[in-house]
Parts: sequence; structure tokens; C-alpha cells
Amino acid sequence: MPVDLDGVRAYFARGPLREDLLAAFIVSVLLIPQSLAYAMLAGLPAQIGLYASLLPLLAYAALGSSPVLGVGPVAVLALMIAQGLGELPAGVAPSEGALVLAAETGLILAIAAWLRLDALASLLSVPVLHGFETGATLAIAFSQLPVLLGSRAHGFDLPALWQDARQGGFDWHGLSALYGLGACAALLAARRWLAGTPGRLAPLLLLLGTIALAWHSDALSRGVALVGALPRLRLELGLPRLDGALWLALLPHALLVALMAYVSSLVVAESLARRRGEKVDARRELAGLAGANLLAAASGGMPVAGSFSRSVLLHDAGSRTRASGAFIAVFMALAMLLLAAPLAWLPKAVLAATIMVAVLSGLRFEPYRDAWRYAPAEGLLMLAVTALVLLVSVAAGLALGVLGSIALLLQRTARPHVALIGRVPGTEHYRNVDRHAVECLPGVLGLRIDESLLFTNARNLTEVVQGFLQQHAGTRRVVLLMSPVNNIDFSGLAALQELHQSLARQSVRLDLSEVKGPVLDRLRASGWQRWFKGQVYLSHHQGMMD
Amino acid sequence: MPVDLDGVRAYFARGPLREDLLAAFIVSVLLIPQSLAYAMLAGLPAQIGLYASLLPLLAYAALGSSPVLGVGPVAVLALMIAQGLGELPAGVAPSEGALVLAAETGLILAIAAWLRLDALASLLSVPVLHGFETGATLAIAFSQLPVLLGSRAHGFDLPALWQDARQGGFDWHGLSALYGLGACAALLAARRWLAGTPGRLAPLLLLLGTIALAWHSDALSRGVALVGALPRLRLELGLPRLDGALWLALLPHALLVALMAYVSSLVVAESLARRRGEKVDARRELAGLAGANLLAAASGGMPVAGSFSRSVLLHDAGSRTRASGAFIAVFMALAMLLLAAPLAWLPKAVLAATIMVAVLSGLRFEPYRDAWRYAPAEGLLMLAVTALVLLVSVAAGLALGVLGSIALLLQRTARPHVALIGRVPGTEHYRNVDRHAVECLPGVLGLRIDESLLFTNARNLTEVVQGFLQQHAGTRRVVLLMSPVNNIDFSGLAALQELHQSLARQSVRLDLSEVKGPVLDRLRASGWQRWFKGQVYLSHHQGMMD
Repeated sequence: MPVDLDGVRAYFARGPLREDLLAAFIVSVLLIPQSLAYAMLAGLPAQIGLYASLLPLLAYAALGSSPVLGVGPVAVLALMIAQGLGELPAGVAPSEGALVLAAETGLILAIAAWLRLDALASLLSVPVLHGFETGATLAIAFSQLPVLLGSRAHGFDLPALWQDARQGGFDWHGLSALYGLGACAALLAARRWLAGTPGRLAPLLLLLGTIALAWHSDALSRGVALVGALPRLRLELGLPRLDGALWLALLPHALLVALMAYVSSLVVAESLARRRGEKVDARRELAGLAGANLLAAASGGMPVAGSFSRSVLLHDAGSRTRASGAFIAVFMALAMLLLAAPLAWLPKAVLAATIMVAVLSGLRFEPYRDAWRYAPAEGLLMLAVTALVLLVSVAAGLALGVLGSIALLLQRTARPHVALIGRVPGTEHYRNVDRHAVECLPGVLGLRIDESLLFTNARNLTEVVQGFLQQHAGTRRVVLLMSPVNNIDFSGLAALQELHQSLARQSVRLDLSEVKGPVLDRLRASGWQRWFKGQVYLSHHQGMMD
Repeated sequence: MPVDLDGVRAYFARGPLREDLLAAFIVSVLLIPQSLAYAMLAGLPAQIGLYASLLPLLAYAALGSSPVLGVGPVAVLALMIAQGLGELPAGVAPSEGALVLAAETGLILAIAAWLRLDALASLLSVPVLHGFETGATLAIAFSQLPVLLGSRAHGFDLPALWQDARQGGFDWHGLSALYGLGACAALLAARRWLAGTPGRLAPLLLLLGTIALAWHSDALSRGVALVGALPRLRLELGLPRLDGALWLALLPHALLVALMAYVSSLVVAESLARRRGEKVDARRELAGLAGANLLAAASGGMPVAGSFSRSVLLHDAGSRTRASGAFIAVFMALAMLLLAAPLAWLPKAVLAATIMVAVLSGLRFEPYRDAWRYAPAEGLLMLAVTALVLLVSVAAGLALGVLGSIALLLQRTARPHVALIGRVPGTEHYRNVDRHAVECLPGVLGLRIDESLLFTNARNLTEVVQGFLQQHAGTRRVVLLMSPVNNIDFSGLAALQELHQSLARQSVRLDLSEVKGPVLDRLRASGWQRWFKGQVYLSHHQGMMD
């Protein structure tokens, strides 16, 4: 797109600059510990999280659409990366795998943007999304528990973790656990009692404080696991390893990572946009995330997405334009230069504490109760997705969720509610005879089928209508109220024709009322006047009285 | 079930007996050549078709529900059996494989009957069913073309057949071709010019005539491929080979065979039941077909289903009860005893002619045109299913068809038609402002969303309503006409809540009108009064005037 020079001038001359800079600083303070922690969660060296928090943010600022989406490493993606890297071929370093995964994720998102596949996000229903988030959050928390307690056990699903912990004899290390649990307590206390700027600075201060403490007390020689000396922090641009077998092995994981990166970012961006009275352009979101992941792949990072916590913080702190993302990148570059040496002394248990407090604060169990109350099948699906993510893998949970949602939708359309309707006395309104005191006409049957006529229910149409007919001997006409029929597919059309013929054999006429405009247009275009001998009424009342 | 002795006595004393016997005889005359031919089509010895036409018919007569379903070998199933047996492990005879396939088919149908899975039939939409039938018909016709012409080429999909024919140098045999083409001509002529009993007897007479001719002219020594000496026809009861690997290898095919056996039988039974004013019990159909296939497996047969041509014939010939099926079995047993020796002299080309004339007479291409006109996407799907069945396999075609139908349904629900509605002057009816001359009220927006609120469209609800709101400044209330909303799933509930909040932030009230009874019940049960502050009106007019 052409550079809007007037816009740039206005941006620096007037309002947004100061707010964007301030918001960027506040978010950077949270991003430093998070980027290190999520890299560790993904099974990668800590500096990779920092690299993923630099150039990708510039790409999103250039291509994306939301002024408050905090792009960078996120916890759920880190879990998926860890599961993907667990299946790397021998001889491939995890960091190399992460680059390939980021490159594939970026390419998939770019292709999706090009093919306008943004609607695919609608395949993830609320039960799937919430079930997935909770399962992933718990899996992340459990995976960090050993690190928090100084144990060597390792695993990204519960069975693997349990087995590894048992083989290690449930080892733990007192001083590490003290760091970890102490950090947890400090973070929780800060959340509880510190508001505003002090509260926001707490994670960074904790980091610096524990680094100082570990250095001062020589924690390394006391057996506390530290992040350790980072290689010289230097941003190197390059292509990820071009190895066909490696790319193929990681492709299924990249597809899932791309889907979750897009959907989770979109959910955050949309919910904040509604609060701000703005609109999100789904296709530009795809493009922005594609650019961010491709740059992550080219600059030694890992797959990135929009973070819920940092996006909310950006909004709260007053970010006005996407420039704040670019400023965050600048602050992160400064932090890298300043923190390279001290980070070696950071206890891993403190990072684990950062992760656990961050993810567990987002846990919500009420949606399970609400879903169960509203639709038990959807509540069970939510629970099943959570269990699968926790016990098997993210991929298994998501697959079950999408297939389950579709199956429930099909089942719902397959068994429509059918009502005999009568006239509310003195009006032209017609309602279910079982629910309202209404009047029926002898010889004319008014029926309402509460569903589109689709292949899932087409086979039952004639049978259902004939059922009502048997209960009402002497019927000469059936008037179908079509206002709930939003669509008629080709199978539904065949069913309607069959119903018409079946009634004609009994000398009963089939009439339709209140057929929707688009539905009637298609019926007419199909040449239905060749077989349809009934009437179409604008109102059901006219149809009954005719 | 207890034997109804009074019913049995009444049956023999009064009407149905004579009609059932006559209908059974007429159908047996058609079944003899068909059973031999379809066994050959399935790549099995001819006598297996006869075995499959004996005991299975008794099982269906005992357990099924339709008095006119002509159970036995059918062409489409024979094609699927042939494809399944093409993948048999070495050392397993095709006839052994056919028994295992029949046993698995019977077990699957029995389990489906037990679990009440009869609704799964609705997964097959009209485009899938018709596309599949046409593809299978063409594949069958092409596979019989070499036999008709005396060639040795062999294959059940076009590419395999073409390759085999090319390798054989497109060989053919003059005298065999003369038998085949002559039989085709005779059968077509009989269909054209002979009505009633002579027409019905034509296939059997042709069989006997060509046997006599082949014997008289010593066709074997002239190189005509004959059915050949059958082993002594003797019905042996026994279990099919119990070999885990074999059962596992055939299971995917058995699932497809079971699905098609059930659905194709159900379609025939239902369409005839409607003509007869009877009802079909889907679960008893499952049970009847399960029994038929299990007995086929135990008595040297092959998978069976209801045949379209024989069922129509049973109906036309006046079958009154399911006893006609048992009589057919008796006639078939007699035929076996009489025909065992002469059948050795039957030219295979004549059987191929029987198959081709039978299946090709059912070809209909108008549904492609109709579907294309009514819904181009469904027309394309029908064509794609046909192409896949013809060029790849039945399994590939069915899989694409089911997934494609579901995708089209999801896409339809994802992009609902939304209309701004106004009052038809002088009435209480509200219609789309773009299609009718209607009146709108300032400050109150009446909207109609023509779809259930489902996860596929939930994400767009707020955005769509906000779009209308932006075009109508000064709106104080939005009244959603809910008569087209047949369902609200949990994602839809979340979307409604979000819309409510989004409007509340702009001080716009959200009201609902004409909410369906079942939908309102569930909203109330979910405790929506905690967040919903608007009104629910029984009629949209009340809602607009309030």
C-alpha cells in the first residue's frame, strides 16, 4: 500500500504518539518475562522468545488491522509447538524445527488470506474453543509444575508427564521450589493488592529481583536450575532449513498452529474492537499474522499470534494505532541488549511461576455449567474436548470438537419440531395448538415445520405430514406455513414434490404460505410450476381463509 | 415374536395367498437370470447368486416390514463386492471373501438396528444418491462390455478396465459377441414390444433359448465363454472363515456395503409404500436386511439388499404380504434343481447382456440438469460423485458426496439472508423492505435473520446488526423477528448475549418477537433473564408498536 505521508505527519504532530509509546512500554514490561517463559514452555532456548517479539510485531503493524492486538509468543501456541517438536526427526534441533513451523504457519495463513478462507474460523464453536482453551491451560500448568518444584519430569500431556515423573521417583529440589513457590506467591499478591503501574511492573521487578538474589547467593552451585548463559543476542536473518521430509512432518502441526493462531487472535481482536466501536477485517488479520510468522521464521523466532493478556493490556493502557506494536519491538530490542548478561542467572522456576500465574488466572469453569444447562450435548462436547487436549493431544481434541459440533448441528436439523397451528381468536396470527388457545378450521390443516428443508430431514417430510393427516380425517387442504423454512436444498425440493404427489393421490391440495423471497425465487427458477398445483399465499391467514 | 395362528389361518383361507404366489412366480422368473448375472458381476461363481436368493428371502420375510421389497443379489452391491474382493489377501477364495463380507454386513446392520442408527441414512442426500447410482450403473455397464464382446479385459473402474483392455490388444471374439449383442437386441425388443406376461417371461426364455442353441451348436469348442459345469447344487450351512486379518481387511467395504444395502432398500421400500398407502418401519428394515445377510453368510451366498426392479415387479404383480418372498425362495429352490445341468451351457455374454439391459434402463440424466438449475453447487457435487465412482471407486465417491453435502449445508447456515422489515400498510404483517412496499417506524429497527443462530454464523450476528444500525442513525430499539430462528445453539446464545451488550453500550434496547416455543423454553431454562433486559413479544407488530 502507498505510504500515507500526511497520516504519518499527523501521527507525530498530534495525539496518538504519546499514548502509543506509553502503552508499548507497559506491554513490553509484561512481554519480556512472557517471551522467555513461552519459549521455555515450547521446549526452546529462552532467547528465541525474545527474537519472536521483535520483527514479527513490525510485520503485524504494517499488515494487520487491530490497533490493540499484542502479537508475539503465546502460551497455547507454545504448547502446540512443544507437541509438534516432540516428533522431530533425529538430528534436527528444536530451534530449527520452530523456524520451519513458523514458516509453514505463515505460508498457510498467507494462502488462507489469498483464498479468502477467513470463514473457516466459524468451524470452531464456543464449546470447542472454550474446551480447548481450558484443556490447553491445564496442560500448560501441569507441564510447568515440575519446573516450579525443581523436578526433571517432563511432558505435555498428563499421561506422559505422570509416567516421566514416576520414573524419576517424583524428585524435587528444595531451593528451586522455594524460588518457584515464592515467585507464585509474589505474583498473586501483586495481582491482588497492587493496582495500576506498580502492579504492571511487578513481573519485571520480580524477574530482576530473583536474578539479583540468585547471583548474590550463587544459586547455581546450590543446584537451582537457571536459564543459563544465552548465546550472544544477535538477530540473524535467513531462510529456515529447506528439508522436504522435515517440512512434511511438521505440516499437520502447522495447520493446527495456523488455525489456532488465527482464531485465537481473531476472537481477541473482535472482542476488543466491539468495546472500542471499531471493526476487524478478518482478511487483513490473516495477512498480518502471515507476515508476522514469516518474519519470525526469517529472524530466528517461533510461531506467533495475538496474546489475550497483552492485547487487553494494550487496550487498557490506551494504544491508539498499530504503531504501538512497532514501539514494543523497539523496547524489546533495548531489553535484549540490557538483559543478555543478567538473564543467565534467572531461575527457571521463576519463569514457570510466571507462566502458571498468567495462564491459570484465565481459567473459567462456569461455561461448562452454562453449556450443560443450556444444551447438555454441547456441555459434554466441551468437557470431552478438554479431556482429549489434556490426556491425548491438542490435535485430537480439536478434531473431536469440530466433528462433534457438525454432528450436533446435523442432528438438530434432522429432527425438526413440527406444530399444528391455529388462529389466535380475533387476530391474523397463527400459533401452536399445544401451547396457545387457538381456533382450527375443519377441512384445512395448518402446519408449521420449524426447520429448513434439507437432506438431513427431507426423507421424513411426507411421513410427518401424513401423520397429522391421519389424525384429521376429512382434510381437503394442507397449508404449510413456510416462514421457518430458510432454505430448501435439492433433496428438500424432491421431498416437497413427493409430498405434493402423495397428497394429490388422496385428493388433498398442498398450499404454501409466507414463503421467503429468496426461497420462492429459487423454486420459481427451478420450474416448479410444472408440478406444483397449489397456491402460494403472502400470509398464512389468507391461505387458511381462501 | 409369537406366531399369529389366526393370521396364518386367515392367510391361507382367504385372499392374499393366490396373489402372493403369482407375484412370487413372476419375480422368480426375473430373479433366476439376475442372480446368476450379479454373482458373475461380483467376480463370483454363478451358483452363489442362486444361494443368495434362497434363505436370505426367508429371513427378510420373517423380520422385515415391506411386503414388496425384492431381497436378493443386486447390481450396485455386486460392483461394491467386486471392488472389495479385489483386495483379498493371497490364498483366500473370492467366495470365502463374499461370505465374510455378508456376515460383516449382517452384523453391522444388526448393530445399527440395535443402536437405532436408522437416521444415519439421512446422510445421503439426493445428489449423492443419484450421483452414486449413475456412476455405479455406468461402471457396471463398462465392466460387462468386454464379457459381452468375448474379450478377456477386466476391471471395475474405467482406468483399470482401459489399461487391461489395452494390454490385451482390445481382443474380442466374434461368436461370443454375436450371442451378447443378439441377447441385448432380444431383451430390448421384448421390453419395447412385449407387454404383460410374455414380456416378463422374455429374460428366462432367452436364457433357455441360448442354452439350447449353445448346446446344439457346441459353442464351447468354438471358443464361446460359458458359465461351465456348476458344482453339485447343494445348500450347505456353516460359518464363514473366522480369520481376524481377513475380517479386518474387509471391514471398510462391509461398512459401505451395509450403508448402501440399507439406504437403497429403504428408498425403494419407502417409495413403494407411499404408492400403496403403507408405512415402512426403518428399524425393522434394518433387522430384516441384517437377518438376510447373516443367512446369506451361513448358506454360501453373498451380500444382499432390496432390488429396485424386482420390488417394482412384486408391487405390479400384486404381492400382498411378505410371504411372497418366502414363495420366491421356494421357486428358486425348484429352479436350482432343474437348471443345474443346463446352466453349464449358458454363454457368459448372454448374462452380460442381461446385466447391461437391466442397469442401463434405469439411467436418468435429467436430475443433473434439474439439480444444476436449482442449485449449481449441488449439481456439481452430483457430477463429481458420479465421476469418482466411475474413475476411482465407490468408496471415494461416497466419501466425497457425504462430506460435500455437509460442507454445502454448513456454508448455507453460515451466510444467512438478513432483511430489514417494514409493515404492509393497513395490516399486521411485516415484510422485507427491498421486496415489498412497506412502512418503517423511525427509531425502531425491525430485522429478520433467516437462519437458526448456530456456531457457523454466530460470529457475524453483532456485526450484521451493527451494519444496519449504522445506516439508521437515531435508532432506540432493535426488534428481531425470531420466527425463522428454529434453533439457538450455545454459540448462538453467546452471540445473542454479545449483541445485547453491544447494543446496550449504545443505549439501544434489543427486543425479540415471535420467538418459537421450544426456543424460548430453552432460553428461559438457561437463566437468560440475568442478562436479557429487553421484551419478548408474541407478535412482531406488538413489538414495533410498543
